[in-house]
Amino acid sequence: MAAKGFRAHGLACGIKEPGSARADLALIVSDQPAVAGAVFTSNKVKAAPVRVSQAHMREKDIRAVIANSGNANAATGVRGIADARAMAHAVAVELGIRRRQVLVGSTGIIGVPLPTERILPRVPDLVAGLSRGRGSDRAARAIMTSDTRPKQYAVEFGIGTSRVRIGGVAKGAGMICPDMATMLCFVTTDARIDKAELQKAVACAVEQSFNRITIDGDMSTNDCVVVLANGMAGNRPIRNGSPAAAAFREALTRVMLKLAKAIVKDGERVTKFVEVNVRGAATYLDARRVAEAVAKSTLVKCSWNGSDPNWGRILDAVGYSRAKVKEELVDVYFGGLLAAQNGMVSATPPEELKKIVANNKFTVTIDLNIGDAEYVVYTSDLSQAYVEFNASEYNLMNRLMTERAAKAGSPG
Amino acid sequence: MAAKGFRAHGLACGIKEPGSARADLALIVSDQPAVAGAVFTSNKVKAAPVRVSQAHMREKDIRAVIANSGNANAATGVRGIADARAMAHAVAVELGIRRRQVLVGSTGIIGVPLPTERILPRVPDLVAGLSRGRGSDRAARAIMTSDTRPKQYAVEFGIGTSRVRIGGVAKGAGMICPDMATMLCFVTTDARIDKAELQKAVACAVEQSFNRITIDGDMSTNDCVVVLANGMAGNRPIRNGSPAAAAFREALTRVMLKLAKAIVKDGERVTKFVEVNVRGAATYLDARRVAEAVAKSTLVKCSWNGSDPNWGRILDAVGYSRAKVKEELVDVYFGGLLAAQNGMVSATPPEELKKIVANNKFTVTIDLNIGDAEYVVYTSDLSQAYVEFNASEYNLMNRLMTERAAKAGSPG
Repeated sequence: MAAKGFRAHGLACGIKEPGSARADLALIVSDQPAVAGAVFTSNKVKAAPVRVSQAHMREKDIRAVIANSGNANAATGVRGIADARAMAHAVAVELGIRRRQVLVGSTGIIGVPLPTERILPRVPDLVAGLSRGRGSDRAARAIMTSDTRPKQYAVEFGIGTSRVRIGGVAKGAGMICPDMATMLCFVTTDARIDKAELQKAVACAVEQSFNRITIDGDMSTNDCVVVLANGMAGNRPIRNGSPAAAAFREALTRVMLKLAKAIVKDGERVTKFVEVNVRGAATYLDARRVAEAVAKSTLVKCSWNGSDPNWGRILDAVGYSRAKVKEELVDVYFGGLLAAQNGMVSATPPEELKKIVANNKFTVTIDLNIGDAEYVVYTSDLSQAYVEFNASEYNLMNRLMTERAAKAGSPG
Repeated sequence: MAAKGFRAHGLACGIKEPGSARADLALIVSDQPAVAGAVFTSNKVKAAPVRVSQAHMREKDIRAVIANSGNANAATGVRGIADARAMAHAVAVELGIRRRQVLVGSTGIIGVPLPTERILPRVPDLVAGLSRGRGSDRAARAIMTSDTRPKQYAVEFGIGTSRVRIGGVAKGAGMICPDMATMLCFVTTDARIDKAELQKAVACAVEQSFNRITIDGDMSTNDCVVVLANGMAGNRPIRNGSPAAAAFREALTRVMLKLAKAIVKDGERVTKFVEVNVRGAATYLDARRVAEAVAKSTLVKCSWNGSDPNWGRILDAVGYSRAKVKEELVDVYFGGLLAAQNGMVSATPPEELKKIVANNKFTVTIDLNIGDAEYVVYTSDLSQAYVEFNASEYNLMNRLMTERAAKAGSPG
């Protein structure tokens, strides 16, 4: 772990498949009292761990986060709540703390009861294995679902004479959309900061990072970003409005933005990472509407997949975004090259534009030329492989439900 | 043509490719003065023919509609307006009427100037070929783009002792989304009705039909629905609030709904036609939000493509729809079978649910169980073939732009 006084671990308890060696249970612990700031999904259908963690967030001293992959514990009713609490309880017993000092995160299939009989017995091992060294990497791997690689990032900066560290792990891959991405992100910092100031910093950093990414426009039931701050850096407390508060926000945003971009780059069957910049909008909301309409357009995403510098589909999405738009003023750029000028085809040779869109990373800029407001969204193309990958969870769901039914019918 | 006093024709003028035998220019003419009602795209980026037709709609007596496929005449600036007017003018000259009595529709690629040098010389042939018999079929074929079949429908009903006919042609296939679908629809009727009453009937019928369909969530720059009524059925004028007005609206809605559903069924690389019913919502707007969120969800559409009765993804979309939702009250059905009850898995055997979603046509019903409001949307799955089909227009665009440039450089 980058930040002082934090340890982590990850191990396999066979949530998706009994006996599988794939890590699916993670734990992060602060050895000292920590305050927590968090942002949870705005979806009205919320997974049980989100509901339980939201309740536990009222505690002033949060000490641990336990998270599993392979099962979202969503759409699981009263039983799901009991299961999420049982996970927190098992950690609390091992650490000698209260259940409400433990937050819970889950990600994976929706609608299947959690196999707690496999999770709970492994909590003692999970605690015993906690480490500063490789713990963070193990936790990052244990929360992966369709992610192809773990996502971690850390920064260090000064406040007065103190060195402060912020480190984070995240997972994403599918169901990624602003407000928020379908993802889990756990950040630890040894900064000394009070709960209210931390919460403001988290909300601000999420707005600049995880709320700026979209892969498929679907928002999940399980999203959460949690930041624990234990004060072990020994800095003078970060006060609202101080240079230290600005430095902390900037560093936290840097960590989250790095993780958010990593989520898009590792999105399900993504072949292109695209930064959509909107400028010249009448208002911030208008700029955001345009950026999100373009970033979510199925037809635009298909054209990127085919390396087609199709500015017409972009202009179409700009037009239906509900932003104030004057067609005859709109300019569209791929990279630094003008593709459409004043709402019409530019003089740039199409082969030059195509070269840019053929890259696996490029920028689209839309200048509405009617104001000063700007917005940026990070997004991806839409591939045939994405559609294939997401065509059916039926067999998985069926196997898991059959297992659950067998478990319910068995004596233990 | 079904309605008295209308004639139509369609022919090939090589808009996409010089010399191609594929019909791409259509004309519909009323022999008698007709009133027109219309709904145009709400996209702020509007094609030239939409702008020109909106202006011409101020006329009390509309006599003709000319439409082309293969080129949208969108994002073409001042020149596009002149080109759309030239199409109307050419028809007016041949028919001996005023240019403003002619409406114009275009559909096809965005951003390429219209090859009027191929369109205008064919207008005399287009007028000479007008017929009551096969004209409607020819017009229906000439407006097709990626449609695989022409879309036509007609009904007949009584007002007093008069028989009234309503017939329509439409095209769709891609960029289909509520408010409105990317489509053209031209309806003719011999009903006697005044312009104000006709406009109300058109708005009402569009709301119940074309605004209820979505394929890819993209809304076009060119959508238009135009209804011409020439009064030749000889019925007593249809008055607002009368039984005749209700009968007319019902019949017009029937024609448009049939055409709207045909557009979804023939959507680009669509394999499933899905009716999404929402009931039990607190408000009409809430019911609509839920239906549209589900019908537009990339992940839900992928699951339908894979014949996966995935109620979890549907519940997720319900949750982010911004409607008032109580997760623990939501029921989801495939066909008549309960898939999720009270926000959790139902007791219905999954193989029974899978059988329904394996059909190429099925119904999804979402009951929010908190009110009385209902809404229905007609939509489709999302296939790998759709993504492939829409991956690149680059070569087509390039060829057309090169042709345009050569034309501009040539003496005529």
